[in-house]
Amino acid sequence: MNHGGNIYQFARQVGCLPDQVLDFSANINPEQAVSADNLPVTALGPYADPDYPLLKAALTSRYPYPDGVDIEVFNGASAAIFAVLRWLQPQDVVLYTPLYGEYAQIAKQLGCTVHTVDRFTDVGTAVPKNSTVIFVNPATPDGQLYEMQTLLGHWRQAGCTVLVDESFLDFCPAESVSAYLGEDDKLLLVKSLSKFYGCAGIRIGFVLAATPVIRQLRRLEPAWKLSSFDMAYMQQALANTAFIDQTRQQTRQRRELLAQTLADSGLFTHIYPSQANFLLAELAADGDGQQLQARLATARILIRVCANFTGLTNRHVRFAVKDELAIAQLAKSLQGGVS
Amino acid sequence: MNHGGNIYQFARQVGCLPDQVLDFSANINPEQAVSADNLPVTALGPYADPDYPLLKAALTSRYPYPDGVDIEVFNGASAAIFAVLRWLQPQDVVLYTPLYGEYAQIAKQLGCTVHTVDRFTDVGTAVPKNSTVIFVNPATPDGQLYEMQTLLGHWRQAGCTVLVDESFLDFCPAESVSAYLGEDDKLLLVKSLSKFYGCAGIRIGFVLAATPVIRQLRRLEPAWKLSSFDMAYMQQALANTAFIDQTRQQTRQRRELLAQTLADSGLFTHIYPSQANFLLAELAADGDGQQLQARLATARILIRVCANFTGLTNRHVRFAVKDELAIAQLAKSLQGGVS
Repeated sequence: MNHGGNIYQFARQVGCLPDQVLDFSANINPEQAVSADNLPVTALGPYADPDYPLLKAALTSRYPYPDGVDIEVFNGASAAIFAVLRWLQPQDVVLYTPLYGEYAQIAKQLGCTVHTVDRFTDVGTAVPKNSTVIFVNPATPDGQLYEMQTLLGHWRQAGCTVLVDESFLDFCPAESVSAYLGEDDKLLLVKSLSKFYGCAGIRIGFVLAATPVIRQLRRLEPAWKLSSFDMAYMQQALANTAFIDQTRQQTRQRRELLAQTLADSGLFTHIYPSQANFLLAELAADGDGQQLQARLATARILIRVCANFTGLTNRHVRFAVKDELAIAQLAKSLQGGVS
Repeated sequence: MNHGGNIYQFARQVGCLPDQVLDFSANINPEQAVSADNLPVTALGPYADPDYPLLKAALTSRYPYPDGVDIEVFNGASAAIFAVLRWLQPQDVVLYTPLYGEYAQIAKQLGCTVHTVDRFTDVGTAVPKNSTVIFVNPATPDGQLYEMQTLLGHWRQAGCTVLVDESFLDFCPAESVSAYLGEDDKLLLVKSLSKFYGCAGIRIGFVLAATPVIRQLRRLEPAWKLSSFDMAYMQQALANTAFIDQTRQQTRQRRELLAQTLADSGLFTHIYPSQANFLLAELAADGDGQQLQARLATARILIRVCANFTGLTNRHVRFAVKDELAIAQLAKSLQGGVS
C-alpha cells in the first residue's frame, strides 16, 4: 500500500470489516473534537454561502494571520496541494525528503523537474534559484520539528517560492510560519484539519498566503465545493478550544507509551525523535518491514512500511499514535503474541 | 446577484434569516430523497476508500453507461466543469446561449476564445472546427429539451470536443447521451446531483467519458476530495428509486401550476416551454425584472433576473418549480398582495 489509511483494501486482505482494523498506518488523531452523539444539524437543501463566511471566521479565529494575508478553503489539504501546484506550474520543485509521495506525484504530472534534498543530512544546502520549495513541518514520516526562520531566510535569498505544510503542527506547541506570510507573496502555508481533529472523512483544508495570491488561486476554483455538513462539523470542532491542549498532552503521553512499547519489543535499532502524532522506527539489519506488516496483519493491525519514501528502506516502519488500548494490543502482537 | 440561490446576501438585504427566504431563484428540487430524520450515520474518523467503490456502484446503477466508459466523481458539477476545462485547455469554446455564466467565466480565466451561438435561432449552425462545444440539456434558464443525436453528429463532423451538461435531465423522461459515450473519446457528460435530489449542500457531481479520458482527468485529482457524510447521503438518495417517478410527476404538476400562476398575474408576455424544474418568463415591454425582484423581496421571495444571461434582458425572470404552498405565496405577491 502506497499510502497509510487504506483500511478497506487491508480489511479485504485479512478478511475482516474495515472498522475492525486497528489502523496504525494513518496519522489521524483517535480522538475527535465533536462527539458522535452531538453531530451538527444543517440545512442540506440550499446552496451554502459561496463566501463560506462562518467557516472562514472560525478558521481565522483558530489560526490568526497578519494583515495583507487571506485564506482559501479546499476539500482537504490534498486538494489544496493540487490546486496550489496546478496554479504555480513551477519549473523546478525542491522536495525535502523523506516526504510523503503526493508532492512528487503531482509535480511529475505537471511536468516539473523534481529535486530532492535529504533533510537528515542537508537541510541548509543550496537549492536551485527561483525554485519552488516544499517543506512539511513537523516532517513526515519522522515527526521532526524544524526551526523555520533560518530556513525561510535561506530560501528567500535564493528567490524561492515556498510552500510550508503544517498539517501536523497543531500536535506540538510550536510557532506557525503564518506570522511571516505578510512579508512576501512567495510564501504559502497549507494545512489539513483531518489529522489533528481526527476526521479524515471531513474534507476541509486551507491555504494562507498574501491576498493577491489567494485572489488568483480562487479564480480557478468553483463557486461551491465544500460540503455543508463538513463545514458545520468543522465549525463545531474549531469552537472546542479545550480540545487543543487536551490533544497535545494526550498525544505526548501516548507517544511516550508507544515509543516505550516499540523499544521494549527489541525489534528496532532506532526510533526517530518526533513532535507529531506518529513515530518512525528502523528495524534491525536483518529486519523486514513487509514481514512485520504481514505478521501484525494477523491481529488486524495495519502499519505503514516506508520503503516508498525517498531515502528510507523497507526496514523503516511508521506507527500512528493511537489510544492506550490500541497500543496495548500492538505491544502484545509485537511481543510475539501473534505468530 | 449573479447566480441564483444566494439566500444569505438576500436575507441580509431584506432583514430576515436565510431559512425564511422563499427561494425561487435556485433550481433545487424542494423535495429530498432522504428524510431529515433518517440521515446516514457514517464513520468520520478514517479516510474514505480512495476509489469510492460504493458511491460509484450506486451512481453506475442509477446512471448506466456502456463498456469503454468510466466515471469520475467531483465535489459537485461546478467542480467537475472546472476540472474538465482545466484539463482540456481548449483554444476555442462554443457556448450555446443563453447559458449560466460559469462556463464563460472559467473559459475566460483559462484564456480560451469564447464563441456564442444563440440556441433559440441557430442551434444547427456551423461551429469552429475542432472547437470545444458546451451544451446544457435541458437548457437553462428556459428548460428546453433538445434532441441530441442530430446535434452530436453535426459537432462530430466538425471534429469538436463536446461537453454535455445533463444536470436537469432527470426531471424529464428523456434519453441521456451516455449511450453515445463509448463511440468516441471527444464526448463528455457532466452531471449535478444537487438539483434533482434537492441537496445543494451535498457536493457530489460526476463526469462520464471514455476510459482513457477519465484516466487522464483522474491524474490531476487528489486522492481524497469527497466528504464521507456526503457520499453516504448520496448513496442513500440514489437507492430511493421511487423518488424518481414521484419527482417527475410532482415537478410536471407543479410546473403547470406555476405556469398558470405566472399567466394569471398578467405580467408576462411569454412563458418559455420547459421540461425542467424552472420556468423562464418575459415581462411585458414596460416591465423590469429588477423592479419585480424588489417588489417580491418585501415578501421575502427571491427570484432570478436573467439580464446577465447572453441574449436575455432584464425583462427575463426565472422561477424554480417549488411546492404548492410556495407557489400560492408567489401568486398572492404577484397579484399585488405585496405593494
